[in-house]
Amino acid sequence: MTDPRVAGAGVTKFGSHPERTSRDMFAEAGLEALDQSGVPVDDIEALYYGNFMGELAEHQGHQGPLMAEMIGVDAPATRYEAACASAGAAIREAVKAIRSGESDVIVVGGAERMTNIGTAGATDALSIAADDLYEIRAGMTFPGAYALMARAYFEEYGGTREDLAHIAVKNHEHALVNDHAQLQKEISVEDALNAPMVADPLGLYDACPITDGAAVAVLTSEAYADEHGLDADIGISGTGQGGDNLALQDRAHYTQTPAADKAASEAYADAGVDAADVDVAEVHDCFTIAEVLALESLSLFERGDAITAARDGTTTRHGDLPVNLSGGLKAKGHPVGATGVAQLATLTWVLDGSHPRANAVPDGTVGVAHNAGGTVASTTVHVLEDKA
Amino acid sequence: MTDPRVAGAGVTKFGSHPERTSRDMFAEAGLEALDQSGVPVDDIEALYYGNFMGELAEHQGHQGPLMAEMIGVDAPATRYEAACASAGAAIREAVKAIRSGESDVIVVGGAERMTNIGTAGATDALSIAADDLYEIRAGMTFPGAYALMARAYFEEYGGTREDLAHIAVKNHEHALVNDHAQLQKEISVEDALNAPMVADPLGLYDACPITDGAAVAVLTSEAYADEHGLDADIGISGTGQGGDNLALQDRAHYTQTPAADKAASEAYADAGVDAADVDVAEVHDCFTIAEVLALESLSLFERGDAITAARDGTTTRHGDLPVNLSGGLKAKGHPVGATGVAQLATLTWVLDGSHPRANAVPDGTVGVAHNAGGTVASTTVHVLEDKA
Repeated sequence: MTDPRVAGAGVTKFGSHPERTSRDMFAEAGLEALDQSGVPVDDIEALYYGNFMGELAEHQGHQGPLMAEMIGVDAPATRYEAACASAGAAIREAVKAIRSGESDVIVVGGAERMTNIGTAGATDALSIAADDLYEIRAGMTFPGAYALMARAYFEEYGGTREDLAHIAVKNHEHALVNDHAQLQKEISVEDALNAPMVADPLGLYDACPITDGAAVAVLTSEAYADEHGLDADIGISGTGQGGDNLALQDRAHYTQTPAADKAASEAYADAGVDAADVDVAEVHDCFTIAEVLALESLSLFERGDAITAARDGTTTRHGDLPVNLSGGLKAKGHPVGATGVAQLATLTWVLDGSHPRANAVPDGTVGVAHNAGGTVASTTVHVLEDKA
Repeated sequence: MTDPRVAGAGVTKFGSHPERTSRDMFAEAGLEALDQSGVPVDDIEALYYGNFMGELAEHQGHQGPLMAEMIGVDAPATRYEAACASAGAAIREAVKAIRSGESDVIVVGGAERMTNIGTAGATDALSIAADDLYEIRAGMTFPGAYALMARAYFEEYGGTREDLAHIAVKNHEHALVNDHAQLQKEISVEDALNAPMVADPLGLYDACPITDGAAVAVLTSEAYADEHGLDADIGISGTGQGGDNLALQDRAHYTQTPAADKAASEAYADAGVDAADVDVAEVHDCFTIAEVLALESLSLFERGDAITAARDGTTTRHGDLPVNLSGGLKAKGHPVGATGVAQLATLTWVLDGSHPRANAVPDGTVGVAHNAGGTVASTTVHVLEDKA
């Protein structure tokens, strides 16, 4: 059993592109990934595709075969859906299929079209990642849910809106060196603190934007990569997935995310690494507080400590443990079904030194990707390693 | 690498239950499957869940963790979506995960709530299995698409509305011995021919009904089944999946379903069986003509021959090759996300002799399940064998 390799990745410009269909964006990212990988399209054995709100945003289900067709892949295609962790779930099954020897070449990708239905439409569509009967109908929204988690965290461990503002500032700064990012705009702590309140204590800059985009990666077995002389040094050495009750009120507490704890433990054990080995992380910061919870679930910080990690510089791109070098969901944008694969792409480019702004990002050997769905009722964690 | 076993299966009464939520139906089927299997819930390592129209019918995405919670499963849960083949896609990945040694116990299941949104709502929701831009907006509906396929078939191979009527009559007769079936009502060829026309040449009795329901199965490795002394004689010995262009107009012809051809070839080769070994089949007869196309893709009949198979008695429950002993989608009903697992349940009960109406159904050793999405842009085929 060997680690699948990332042979190529493609990502569209993330942003507000209401005129672009999912299929159009997927084709751009997919053809770029195929081109970069050097893998002939006829060798592709399957497409594992992530999408969340196609039914509501584009009146389009059954997108697997549609996306396969868009990139000329004549192979089985299935859509994976685990809310905002849809692409992470697709990556996980692809990793398992390659490891088992069942497949040698799989395309994993995701796309989401969101801005065409407007902010109210997208907010409604996002809400169905929560429990319709017991949360949404009671007026719960995602900013509200994460605001509850932030308040509980402040109460249990301490922390302030200013601590969260530093996370936003950091991720906006990181987005400046990611040409695919949606919000390439430097902000200050004051900008964040003075922004309109969305759900106390979360303001506008604590939330990720609504985003259109696609991301695609070509994964191969080690044997295939070797045999075909591919430039594919990055291996996916660990995969983990955890689940939790869908509704926030059914959880044991609001300040920890056990689904992510489980996914992280499984992925680290699978890869044979410890949290201490991690050089760089891409985590699911749909809200600034979510970055804090993710870093603690990944055991990269003790409980209660991640809240100050951006403020004290540890997680900036010049710090000891750069987090969300892509800008994160916060500033890169969050086209839901694509997010997990976009994380994979960033880590691949950072670890293998092929990042378009290689001088602006640090080097590293071990990277970890954390992709969460809903209020962390689903989480996947993947460990990537530079095998060169 | 050994074949996963079916340790237990549960199916709700299929029908019009607009007051029942998906979670309610899934809980019923899931707890029945767990109970029948004798597997302790804590041993479940994952839920692979099929659902198609939850976003439109229940304003609920992210159903994986929700359904896991409903049956007390504390494990990762992902939703699979390949239109009407969603559950087939979930079964396939579960089979692969058990075979590879990655998992020992997986629950596969699906649910769909459809009648609560009415016939127009369900017809619209079903339409998103086709291409929104190039088919749906042009007025295409699924009855229309399958009517085109029936007309093309009649023209290429011959066949009449009366031939199709015999398929409906057969499946209605089969539903009389399936207590879970929605349409337990005997009909005559005249009833079918005189029914209102839906899309010429398909009348009301050529189409499956709109259905609420759930189906769940517990799959284990052979080693787990042996070690725990489970009554699990039925193994899934072959899996196959094929894909095709989403839109009907992009296909090479309308009278064959290459996605199903590929899935069938792969599944037979995987199981090491031939079509001639098959004793019983459950196929995706969303329309009567779909049963014909399925049987030919499965190589159970030559091209052009399956159209008369019901009429000449071959595929009735007293014939040489009983097809859709459950009543098929046509009379058992078609709660989309559950259909693939319901096929698995029927075959398991028929092959292991535990069918509640065992005296009314034939015996057999090899069964095949064919689950199709859209106008057969996605297909999974599974081979089941009695290992006792």
